[in-house]
Amino acid sequence: MPAGWLPFGDDMASAADGLLWTADMIMDGIDFDSRSHSWRDIGRKAMAVNLSDCAAMAARPVSALVAVALCEKICMDDAVELLRGCRDCAKAFGCVITGGDTNSWANPSVISVTILGRVPAGRTPVRRDGAKPGDRLFVSGPLGGSILGRHLTFEPRVELALRAAESLPLHAMIDISDGLSVDLTHLATASGCGAEVSERLLRAAIHDDARRLATTTGRLPIEHALHDGEDFELLMALDGAVSDEAAAALGLLPLGGFFAGQGVRLNREGGGSTPIEPRGWEHFR
Amino acid sequence: MPAGWLPFGDDMASAADGLLWTADMIMDGIDFDSRSHSWRDIGRKAMAVNLSDCAAMAARPVSALVAVALCEKICMDDAVELLRGCRDCAKAFGCVITGGDTNSWANPSVISVTILGRVPAGRTPVRRDGAKPGDRLFVSGPLGGSILGRHLTFEPRVELALRAAESLPLHAMIDISDGLSVDLTHLATASGCGAEVSERLLRAAIHDDARRLATTTGRLPIEHALHDGEDFELLMALDGAVSDEAAAALGLLPLGGFFAGQGVRLNREGGGSTPIEPRGWEHFR
Repeated sequence: MPAGWLPFGDDMASAADGLLWTADMIMDGIDFDSRSHSWRDIGRKAMAVNLSDCAAMAARPVSALVAVALCEKICMDDAVELLRGCRDCAKAFGCVITGGDTNSWANPSVISVTILGRVPAGRTPVRRDGAKPGDRLFVSGPLGGSILGRHLTFEPRVELALRAAESLPLHAMIDISDGLSVDLTHLATASGCGAEVSERLLRAAIHDDARRLATTTGRLPIEHALHDGEDFELLMALDGAVSDEAAAALGLLPLGGFFAGQGVRLNREGGGSTPIEPRGWEHFR
Repeated sequence: MPAGWLPFGDDMASAADGLLWTADMIMDGIDFDSRSHSWRDIGRKAMAVNLSDCAAMAARPVSALVAVALCEKICMDDAVELLRGCRDCAKAFGCVITGGDTNSWANPSVISVTILGRVPAGRTPVRRDGAKPGDRLFVSGPLGGSILGRHLTFEPRVELALRAAESLPLHAMIDISDGLSVDLTHLATASGCGAEVSERLLRAAIHDDARRLATTTGRLPIEHALHDGEDFELLMALDGAVSDEAAAALGLLPLGGFFAGQGVRLNREGGGSTPIEPRGWEHFR
């Protein structure tokens, strides 16, 4: 890797000339279900998961490519709807689709979007490896139960990330694609420190969808908030000196903090703590 | 599309800041056959088809992303071989893989590579829509029968394309991925003129593989040269004033030329001409 380029494994990678890029692939039966989701929504998701990676680096999306292997059973109208979903979502974030690759085959559909992004002048990308002991942990919105629909309709936090990078002492960031437990582990491990989540604070950050889902799964809402994937909210490590007011002004919810050491733990309301095992949910299979 | 950006549908698209990019996806059972091809060779092909798109624009490859949906039946060693094939091929062209996306599922494997490229300072990309009546048509190497193995082992013509763009009056270029008949039709249609291939010249540009293949298919070698896909040679429109010597110095083979009008035709050795129907071969199905 050329000097100055991002290390492998962050939400985006170095492209050239200070530009960043990412490619995320979504697959029928894994990331979406073409039997129940509209092709417009599927296209939107294919683009939005990549826009969320831009958000996670505090980069502004610039352009996109869309490569598809479409199941030959789908009709031209479906393919057009898929591309419209991609295009409209990109456009809403100032991103233009400039090309792609269209294929068909007898197997389930695969959609691979590549996005190129740019960090505002004078800034550097916000990486996942910059959290420090003493930093506070925040999340951009409530968590859990995205499978009830938000995994398709979530809003990539691009503008929020740019504002946070500009106005807050932001040390590290990641988007929650695999679940809080998994992605916080990524953040802490990459940063070489431990992370703790306050059960009390997490309770205040449980999405209503997690509560609704819990009534059918028999699991606790807080477990859905901890382990469900595809929230696509941002996890941020902010300097410990940040005020609640400054974070709240951007709608950030406090979750806990980082400590010298390793591991990720849940500090119980009743006292004591338990390890958080990285365990994300896999949708649709 | 922002002003000054490439029109949709060329071998590469505009990315940002004058950079170009392309994404090509290859699928098991369509573009390769994992039952008979090695994962190293499959990885090489996934990268090489994208490098060929760089060549077709006379761009130098810079960086790449590799996104995969791998069949869960393949083992970790296979996946590593695949990525090694991608990496080694990229490296040989000065291109570095900076990131990607790894997924698995129960269906056949899909590999989507995105490449970012740069046109040398002071130059513009060589597009497919610049051929003019009176231009001569050349090809970078003999054609046909790539399914016997060259579709995996072909050499992307990156260096040749850069030299041609620098030293020859190069008006338009495309790589032959779908077959001479299809890609010459693309070139002529995009350029708004007609193209003719001399049967006599084409006979001198038939690959030995086309002759070998013809012994088993019962078709004529020249038909394989005309219609087989995945040669990944470059078709070039050079100014009519170019000398045979200048073209031959780069190893280019003359094929014919462009005329005011439309359509693509084969000028028969015995006199007269027949239309060339765009008809490429589909591999492995």
